[in-house]
Amino acid sequence: MKYASDSVTDIQIAYIGGGSRGWAWILMGDLAQEEQLSGTVRLYDIDHEAARANETIGNALAQRSDVNGRWQYEAVDTLERAVKDADFVVISIQPGTFTEMESDVHAPEQYGIHQPVGDTVGAGGIIRALRTLPMYIEFAEAIRDYAPRAWVINYTNPMTLCTRMLYEVFPEIKAFGCCHEVFSTQKLLAHILMHHEGIQEDIPREAIKTNVLGINHFTWLDRASWKNLNLLPIYRKFVDAHYETGYEGLEPWTARVFSTAHRVKFDLFRRYGLIAAAGDRHLAEFVPPAWYLKDPQTVKQWKFHLTPVSWRINRQQELKEKAETLLRDIQQLELKDSGEEGVQQIKALVGLDDLVTNVNLPNCGQLKNIPNGAVVETNAVFRRDSVIPVMAGALPADIHNLVSRHVYNQETLVQAAVKKDLDLAFNAFVNDPMLSGLALRDAKQLFVTMVDNTKAYLPGWGT
Amino acid sequence: MKYASDSVTDIQIAYIGGGSRGWAWILMGDLAQEEQLSGTVRLYDIDHEAARANETIGNALAQRSDVNGRWQYEAVDTLERAVKDADFVVISIQPGTFTEMESDVHAPEQYGIHQPVGDTVGAGGIIRALRTLPMYIEFAEAIRDYAPRAWVINYTNPMTLCTRMLYEVFPEIKAFGCCHEVFSTQKLLAHILMHHEGIQEDIPREAIKTNVLGINHFTWLDRASWKNLNLLPIYRKFVDAHYETGYEGLEPWTARVFSTAHRVKFDLFRRYGLIAAAGDRHLAEFVPPAWYLKDPQTVKQWKFHLTPVSWRINRQQELKEKAETLLRDIQQLELKDSGEEGVQQIKALVGLDDLVTNVNLPNCGQLKNIPNGAVVETNAVFRRDSVIPVMAGALPADIHNLVSRHVYNQETLVQAAVKKDLDLAFNAFVNDPMLSGLALRDAKQLFVTMVDNTKAYLPGWGT
Amino acid sequence: MKYASDSVTDIQIAYIGGGSRGWAWILMGDLAQEEQLSGTVRLYDIDHEAARANETIGNALAQRSDVNGRWQYEAVDTLERAVKDADFVVISIQPGTFTEMESDVHAPEQYGIHQPVGDTVGAGGIIRALRTLPMYIEFAEAIRDYAPRAWVINYTNPMTLCTRMLYEVFPEIKAFGCCHEVFSTQKLLAHILMHHEGIQEDIPREAIKTNVLGINHFTWLDRASWKNLNLLPIYRKFVDAHYETGYEGLEPWTARVFSTAHRVKFDLFRRYGLIAAAGDRHLAEFVPPAWYLKDPQTVKQWKFHLTPVSWRINRQQELKEKAETLLRDIQQLELKDSGEEGVQQIKALVGLDDLVTNVNLPNCGQLKNIPNGAVVETNAVFRRDSVIPVMAGALPADIHNLVSRHVYNQETLVQAAVKKDLDLAFNAFVNDPMLSGLALRDAKQLFVTMVDNTKAYLPGWGT
Amino acid sequence: MKYASDSVTDIQIAYIGGGSRGWAWILMGDLAQEEQLSGTVRLYDIDHEAARANETIGNALAQRSDVNGRWQYEAVDTLERAVKDADFVVISIQPGTFTEMESDVHAPEQYGIHQPVGDTVGAGGIIRALRTLPMYIEFAEAIRDYAPRAWVINYTNPMTLCTRMLYEVFPEIKAFGCCHEVFSTQKLLAHILMHHEGIQEDIPREAIKTNVLGINHFTWLDRASWKNLNLLPIYRKFVDAHYETGYEGLEPWTARVFSTAHRVKFDLFRRYGLIAAAGDRHLAEFVPPAWYLKDPQTVKQWKFHLTPVSWRINRQQELKEKAETLLRDIQQLELKDSGEEGVQQIKALVGLDDLVTNVNLPNCGQLKNIPNGAVVETNAVFRRDSVIPVMAGALPADIHNLVSRHVYNQETLVQAAVKKDLDLAFNAFVNDPMLSGLALRDAKQLFVTMVDNTKAYLPGWGT
Repeated sequence: MKYASDSVTDIQIAYIGGGSRGWAWILMGDLAQEEQLSGTVRLYDIDHEAARANETIGNALAQRSDVNGRWQYEAVDTLERAVKDADFVVISIQPGTFTEMESDVHAPEQYGIHQPVGDTVGAGGIIRALRTLPMYIEFAEAIRDYAPRAWVINYTNPMTLCTRMLYEVFPEIKAFGCCHEVFSTQKLLAHILMHHEGIQEDIPREAIKTNVLGINHFTWLDRASWKNLNLLPIYRKFVDAHYETGYEGLEPWTARVFSTAHRVKFDLFRRYGLIAAAGDRHLAEFVPPAWYLKDPQTVKQWKFHLTPVSWRINRQQELKEKAETLLRDIQQLELKDSGEEGVQQIKALVGLDDLVTNVNLPNCGQLKNIPNGAVVETNAVFRRDSVIPVMAGALPADIHNLVSRHVYNQETLVQAAVKKDLDLAFNAFVNDPMLSGLALRDAKQLFVTMVDNTKAYLPGWGT
Repeated sequence: MKYASDSVTDIQIAYIGGGSRGWAWILMGDLAQEEQLSGTVRLYDIDHEAARANETIGNALAQRSDVNGRWQYEAVDTLERAVKDADFVVISIQPGTFTEMESDVHAPEQYGIHQPVGDTVGAGGIIRALRTLPMYIEFAEAIRDYAPRAWVINYTNPMTLCTRMLYEVFPEIKAFGCCHEVFSTQKLLAHILMHHEGIQEDIPREAIKTNVLGINHFTWLDRASWKNLNLLPIYRKFVDAHYETGYEGLEPWTARVFSTAHRVKFDLFRRYGLIAAAGDRHLAEFVPPAWYLKDPQTVKQWKFHLTPVSWRINRQQELKEKAETLLRDIQQLELKDSGEEGVQQIKALVGLDDLVTNVNLPNCGQLKNIPNGAVVETNAVFRRDSVIPVMAGALPADIHNLVSRHVYNQETLVQAAVKKDLDLAFNAFVNDPMLSGLALRDAKQLFVTMVDNTKAYLPGWGT
Repeated sequence: MKYASDSVTDIQIAYIGGGSRGWAWILMGDLAQEEQLSGTVRLYDIDHEAARANETIGNALAQRSDVNGRWQYEAVDTLERAVKDADFVVISIQPGTFTEMESDVHAPEQYGIHQPVGDTVGAGGIIRALRTLPMYIEFAEAIRDYAPRAWVINYTNPMTLCTRMLYEVFPEIKAFGCCHEVFSTQKLLAHILMHHEGIQEDIPREAIKTNVLGINHFTWLDRASWKNLNLLPIYRKFVDAHYETGYEGLEPWTARVFSTAHRVKFDLFRRYGLIAAAGDRHLAEFVPPAWYLKDPQTVKQWKFHLTPVSWRINRQQELKEKAETLLRDIQQLELKDSGEEGVQQIKALVGLDDLVTNVNLPNCGQLKNIPNGAVVETNAVFRRDSVIPVMAGALPADIHNLVSRHVYNQETLVQAAVKKDLDLAFNAFVNDPMLSGLALRDAKQLFVTMVDNTKAYLPGWGT
Repeated sequence: MKYASDSVTDIQIAYIGGGSRGWAWILMGDLAQEEQLSGTVRLYDIDHEAARANETIGNALAQRSDVNGRWQYEAVDTLERAVKDADFVVISIQPGTFTEMESDVHAPEQYGIHQPVGDTVGAGGIIRALRTLPMYIEFAEAIRDYAPRAWVINYTNPMTLCTRMLYEVFPEIKAFGCCHEVFSTQKLLAHILMHHEGIQEDIPREAIKTNVLGINHFTWLDRASWKNLNLLPIYRKFVDAHYETGYEGLEPWTARVFSTAHRVKFDLFRRYGLIAAAGDRHLAEFVPPAWYLKDPQTVKQWKFHLTPVSWRINRQQELKEKAETLLRDIQQLELKDSGEEGVQQIKALVGLDDLVTNVNLPNCGQLKNIPNGAVVETNAVFRRDSVIPVMAGALPADIHNLVSRHVYNQETLVQAAVKKDLDLAFNAFVNDPMLSGLALRDAKQLFVTMVDNTKAYLPGWGT
């Protein structure tokens, strides 16, 4: 990394999961548009061919005349080579294949358990965690050994546990986890102002100031404002108007598999008084399934979707075709505001800008009544070589209870992964709300089945 | 209170709930057998006749030649008169009548919820708490105003919440809660030593040294010893031998409504590694009902009983007859070791003895990772005018999660009771494991029904 | 307060100490230059004439053509009238007269104690605190009763204790304390960059990003940066070059009574490794007097000044003359950047801007190993109706010890003031480093003398 | 270790410093009188001859007919051999020789600093710590490697730092530190009852129940009772009667070098309200020297002694002669109640008894407002394989400040010892109250001199 007063050059970014189709192109695009930064991105992926393809795409992009930030892309074939002396390590992987994800999401259906996402908590999230954490142990060891001063940005789910494991293995690591779920709620609030409160100007989501409390995908806002407006009473009025039918003014809930009518969010607001700041599909997985996930019919009434793995497989196919296109014609890569914050965070961390935004970090007091070390999502101040959490305060007792149950389950899973202890993992499994309706025998059966389906990723684990 | 070096006389005890049939006689008996203490017990009860009857019984007992401790009994007709300048306040009430308890225990059965006790957590425990806490606000105010330096011993359930509310209203109160559930586990351990480990001597339960962690009725032991024996491996062997069938060596599980074969205790030990130190009937209520309470058939398989309120009504009738008998013939009151510790605690608190035992107290660090102020059950050192908790340490992450869920629910209920906020109470209600299988609509219906059944005790509460 | 999207009008500011000559005019000037804000400033002062004069000056200023922010000024004659329904309360008073300050600063000289300022810690700071805290009890009660939702900005010294007492009396108060000492260190760092590191641009002090830890007037920086430069090694080089002689590149240390050559700051940096971020005159009072304050000769060697009260009396006379001038000719009030942040903070609090700056707030975890509730100085994020501390982290053990000694002394003084307990105050007095060389008898004598000199302000205090 | 229900045999005790003349014989005597325990004591000492002599003495003692506990003594020549698989490790060493102690105690006199003991805090205590801590690093490593499950009892001063370092190196160690200073205060309280309050019975010091708070040699009692008597008002009356002259009813303060008239203790009680529970010689070293240690004349007025190292040298000579005697005639070893608790602690730890007593342990919350991990002295419950601190509560703010200053200084010294960082050690040195009157230059000179005098014990340390 070389510093000049208004730019930083020769930045070394290690991209673990660098064969990604989709997310990698977003990063490439964002880097290409940022003129104060330049350097090299080392693409590492167990699918080395995919990394090679992205190398080609990235370097082609760098030749385009409309590009400001000059970056080199280089596919590397070992983790060590990727990480060695990196300034930044970006981790965004798909742990395992769609075969394992198929089991994560759909095996529980046999037992009447319906998961809209299945990558964070619940049966799917827990088994995915078991599979992913050994990889993160390896990543953390590589960072400790080859780039101990690098900043590490995690995008992989389960976000909380992946970030948490990095610190478990290497407590001095400078890692944080990023997720855009809160951004959607900011967009919703901006939308309400523009379309229901008569504000005549364009309000970007960054202008919506919030205090974020919680854990990834189960975050809450107890303060939200735009300029001098307090958005809580405005949101309350909006929820009252749309509680029964939901709100489809941004898009019909039937538009895409990710679309919702925000009915879960509205219901949680009514009952708990804070704004739940994640998509309904995620929120529903953190609470008793009898509430929003009893059966597909109930899900439909709450106006959101279960995301079948078949959808992901189709999408992957489209992305493969997109990759072919880009390899042929780099002009097809559209440069636009991606809405992601990664590049702005890097810019702040090299000292070129300030930023206050929400990230996932080990708790050191920013979220009250949550144990130190557990990874929480709150705002933080990004500055040169530092990410400093702001004091988010405490969740109200009733919400706290919903959240802390997952916090402690996740802490249990960290221990299980460190000890390779399936019994301990099972104790977390049966204590997840999504599983709590199962008889112990059924829960055990399902657990064994799902672990078996992912056992290739659990070398050295006992029964 | 008058001190002499080896005795204390003129002790003033206020007994709230002093019309009790049963528990009052046990206290009378224990006081009668303790020669170093004497004084006056002021009996206060909303059933003043019952208090008057106990006055007669108590004073008759004091005349018996086999009695060592000379106590006067006096029925008083106001709370103020009872509490005024008391040295000790004993609270042991039945909140409401069997009509309300009938609703607590049996109303949820309509929704497939089966409660073995229904006085601690779950639908019954929560509604009972709502009814009881306003009374405890009144008690705490009276103690604050009329006997701020008195030691207060609570025996009423829900133990945790009653004790907690005393401190909420009057933070300087010197109160603790007592329960004999842990004693039973000590007895079981002593029994194992004597009958399965070849120890040839009589082992009293006090000789079983334990480290107690948790909350009332959901307490755990991570250390247990007798003399130089570590009891954990001995218990493990015992559980292994009796896991499938349970253990009926103390009494057949069918003997009484309170009898069990300890199968729940054994199952929890197998899965969690610590000794659950309460009766199976209580333990089963703290975990997902799918585990041990799915339906009456499941309960039977785990070899314990649901306690119908009809049983309590019958027993109350027997006690009434017993009262008649005692009023006629005080010799019928048998003086024996009750197994209760109240009098020993009083003796320690006036400085005549030392005692280390388990009690319910606000957490000030003795139980790690539980918020300060929440009432927890651990060991404490009793000495002259002091009850000092010992550092119990932390529960393992998986058990901690089971326990803390109730801790936070109880903290939510305290706030609900202070604010008379039924919405907040409902948020605790739906987050109780026993309720978590209900759809929100059903949960609301049940809540409204049960609150309605107890509404006479909720003056000034909103919808 | 009336909100429009880009301005806020009808802001009600209560100014306690509003007869101030000097600081009031700075606030007036800053408000006059800020076009997005307007409203009324109610000037309250025990010197009502002075408040009336400022009313005249303020309203005259508002008529000037070069003024952007339109404010009305109104002298009021009771605290209640000033505070009632205010949106902001600014407190900047001189507690007592120069007679008491004379005793604060000079009485200890009889005992060989030389204080450069005498308003924060040490004999003078402590006695000043005793005199001031009863006034702050009154202010806090007025705010609690008449403007509980107002934001309160304190400028009075002793800063920590004044701010602390506001929270002691009214825990829900929204108060913070502001001080510009850290700004001077930022200016020094900017100066180093511009004049010793070859940076060719104008660097405002706000561009120097710092992490602030400590208590007012004894604050430390463990991180400092400008853009992508880490300023710690740069400062180290600078200190090495100027350690022996001090640095007078900003102004000769003999220029003014406040001027220094930064030798204390440099010495602390060498020995402790962090940047002490306050003026040498203040820093020297927090550590053993044998270090920098043994006698006037030692002070001279370290190249800073003791500030005699006579200097303050002279300055006050000049300000009186300045007031006369302004009353005659408002054009003499120069509008310029004052360097103070009060108006920017108000602007952020009404939602018109974001701000990260250092303030004095009760600790809620932002400074590790300091008890919750003690007032500490760290950075905070200012947003609409919120001031949220950022996690500053922990001071190194050796510095922590220097700081925490004052923290606990200040907590002792708060209790002394609440209980009007001079014995407790004396225990804080003798534990201040400045006093620790005195025999108990001498310390007592000095304490009694100084308390006696200020006794008019201690109604109801015991011996 | 072999367990039978009422005895434990084959206990392996490693005694580091086993060549001790004096303390070793006390332990031998106490073990000889305890019939429920037996085993082997392995004596390790850098003075191997002295260990050999104690082997002979110990084994001779075991042959005496009046001995109940049968113990073998064995001098071993390596630390590993001593510690390997031990059940208990007793550490009681003299770190360095009288030459170093001479420097510790008397070198500061050149600078006007007079230390009554010089082994805990102050210049002498700090330099002694620097010399001792590297030895304790070695001990901790040996215990970690060869006897990780042993209970470790430390008697060496500086107690706090020695115990603290054991945990720093091996956090899972089961170590505690023992000191009899509190016992003396218990004896004084018992004496007051028997000789001034008309209690006609013999009161052993164990019957005085206390709540202990603080750090070793600077411990305080906020509760003390005997049976049902509160001793605080009794002590107050006693102090009032004897404040000016001191109390010599136990022995004249001129009797021995350790004798005092308790005037320091009385003065601290008057000013702080709690009972300082250590000898005046120790207490005086923790507070500003201007109070009790200004010069030898002041010490005399407060009626205690400075202990010159010459006295220790003489005493050592006497002990050598005593060793000769014992080697010739073991009957000269008198068996009596030593007043030490080590054997009772061992007995409790093997499960044969319960014990509540004061010990030095890392803080885990038992002492409020002191950081976790710092070694504090409070009561603890000893049981089979466990020492569990009781919640001692918090010191009042003014005393807390006196104590915490040493706590943080000690934490600084631990870091200095781990990093071999003399600059950091110097920062602790100049912040000790005993040193705070020195100009920085003088303090540095003294520090360098004293470090130089002990440098043989600081291999690998920097400047």
